[in-house]
Amino acid sequence: MRLAILIFAFAFSMGAALADPLPSWRDGEAKSNILSFVREAVQPGNPAYIVPAERIAVFDNDGTLWAEQPFYFQLAYAIDRVGEMAKNNPDMLAQNPVLEAAAEGDMQGVLASGHDGLLDVIAASHSGMTTGDFKQSVGEWLASARHPTSGQRYHQMVYQPMIELLVYLRDNDFKTYIVSGGGIDFIRVFSEQVYGIPPEQVIGSSIRSEFQVTETTAETVKLPELFFYDDKAGKPVAINHHIGRRPVFAGGNSDGDHQMLQYTDRGGDRPGFALLIHHTDAEREWAYDKGSTIGGLDNALTEARERGWTVVDMKNDWRTVFSFQLGAQ
Amino acid sequence: MRLAILIFAFAFSMGAALADPLPSWRDGEAKSNILSFVREAVQPGNPAYIVPAERIAVFDNDGTLWAEQPFYFQLAYAIDRVGEMAKNNPDMLAQNPVLEAAAEGDMQGVLASGHDGLLDVIAASHSGMTTGDFKQSVGEWLASARHPTSGQRYHQMVYQPMIELLVYLRDNDFKTYIVSGGGIDFIRVFSEQVYGIPPEQVIGSSIRSEFQVTETTAETVKLPELFFYDDKAGKPVAINHHIGRRPVFAGGNSDGDHQMLQYTDRGGDRPGFALLIHHTDAEREWAYDKGSTIGGLDNALTEARERGWTVVDMKNDWRTVFSFQLGAQ
Ligand SMILES: [Ca+2]
Ligand SMILES: [Ca+2]
Repeated sequence: MRLAILIFAFAFSMGAALADPLPSWRDGEAKSNILSFVREAVQPGNPAYIVPAERIAVFDNDGTLWAEQPFYFQLAYAIDRVGEMAKNNPDMLAQNPVLEAAAEGDMQGVLASGHDGLLDVIAASHSGMTTGDFKQSVGEWLASARHPTSGQRYHQMVYQPMIELLVYLRDNDFKTYIVSGGGIDFIRVFSEQVYGIPPEQVIGSSIRSEFQVTETTAETVKLPELFFYDDKAGKPVAINHHIGRRPVFAGGNSDGDHQMLQYTDRGGDRPGFALLIHHTDAEREWAYDKGSTIGGLDNALTEARERGWTVVDMKNDWRTVFSFQLGAQ
Repeated sequence: MRLAILIFAFAFSMGAALADPLPSWRDGEAKSNILSFVREAVQPGNPAYIVPAERIAVFDNDGTLWAEQPFYFQLAYAIDRVGEMAKNNPDMLAQNPVLEAAAEGDMQGVLASGHDGLLDVIAASHSGMTTGDFKQSVGEWLASARHPTSGQRYHQMVYQPMIELLVYLRDNDFKTYIVSGGGIDFIRVFSEQVYGIPPEQVIGSSIRSEFQVTETTAETVKLPELFFYDDKAGKPVAINHHIGRRPVFAGGNSDGDHQMLQYTDRGGDRPGFALLIHHTDAEREWAYDKGSTIGGLDNALTEARERGWTVVDMKNDWRTVFSFQLGAQ
């Protein structure tokens, strides 16, 4: 019996020693920085200890939790949706070249139309229906559409190392949030299933909505008008608005996340952890930073190096990028 | 030993039978409706069962969780704050009669100035500082100011039966939220300590803020401009924006809560519980409804009676109103 106990104790300690909460992360500075921060944050008495209620972790979505190339996935939805709608209502395209381009699936034509054209496409595809109907439409699209280069479902284009990081943080009583420039209602459709993040922990850009009530129904209906653009300096503002606490951990990948990382970093006597994903892997994913129209990264990378933020070199720091690539390794 | 077990078992079953989760509620329809709803909601297999993630309960604040007479408490803060600021900066009052009235503590003069005058007082007292400094100011005020008729601290003017209801719902895995026409940052100062509701579960009206960063600091700063007015049809819109789920339980006290109660009530095949607090106790609290400039209640009460919502008759349904009155009973 004493032998059995010994064997059990040995096996248990081996298990603990072998258990790696971030198996898709290669050993290196990024991984060890994360592990050190979390271990100290949960250790009572450690000067870097953080009470559980204050363990707020925020993450950008496009390019941080899932891919964003060759175009934002939500834009693919918008274009598919305009094509779908135009089948039943061709008049909606009348004399609007960008909607015509969208209806033909001409992504380059849509992108060439600039900011105003994109807003036209978002307005046409995201409004004029209840929030519930919109979410159902997105859910159906996710179940059928495929990414143009990988051929995968869009919600499979999520970064396996980041999924592990989200789980690791939650296992240590961090509350994980998404803070995205993408649409709040769009992300809420898959955030719980894909990231384990419930709708009430999703913050994003939004269009206005209005309340409509009848004798038997009561719904919010989406309107073709911007309410809040959750990007750049809007991100700390939205974090304060939705959460009311300063994060202690923030992850992003572009200059759109710069202010959110600053807000987390400059936490006074409790500086937070700023994580920047650098897309360096042209083979398994994409390589881009400064000058990219999607996910441009310049000033935030400069500040990350100046202030010693943790920069993830995707090519070297990640053993796996997408879980669907695991079989190929 | 068998006797000891028997006594223990008897005492335990007695304890269970006697344990009343809502001791400040008198037996009656309101109390029994609440108890039935919650018991069915948490009973797997019951047709009215609700999965824990969907157990969202929302509550108005002024007049629902704490008192709102003889004026909204936040307005008392605003007026005290203008008086405080004017001591150091008398120029701020120049040629603005409503700010002069506020600085003199003349509540009637402020109220007489109407909606625009009130916004002037809120703008002057709630903006031009970081969110952190604002919260510190509110905290200091709560620790020193006293309610004009009861002489109590404002945060002691909370309804003991509603505190019990919040705890009872949370004990049954409901997530409790505040959805208030009052200021989101104002309520967040005391919501955790007083109601057990953390800042990220407070929704309210808000003014705009902007992000300001230096080499060593990064703060949101409050601006003198309305961002969102969380009242009437704004409440379901804000609930959808912040939570992304339809509540299954909602409590309010005025026509400002009417749409939030409709949104909860008309939940399709999962109708929610709508609770309306009717101020009927002029002796222990105040008696008011239709025609009151503060907390006016008319259409919501009519619909509550038509649709069988649960209406709390404060005078008859509540054994205790404020915990500080307990000694007097
Ligand atoms: Ca991004
Ligand atoms: Ca109220």
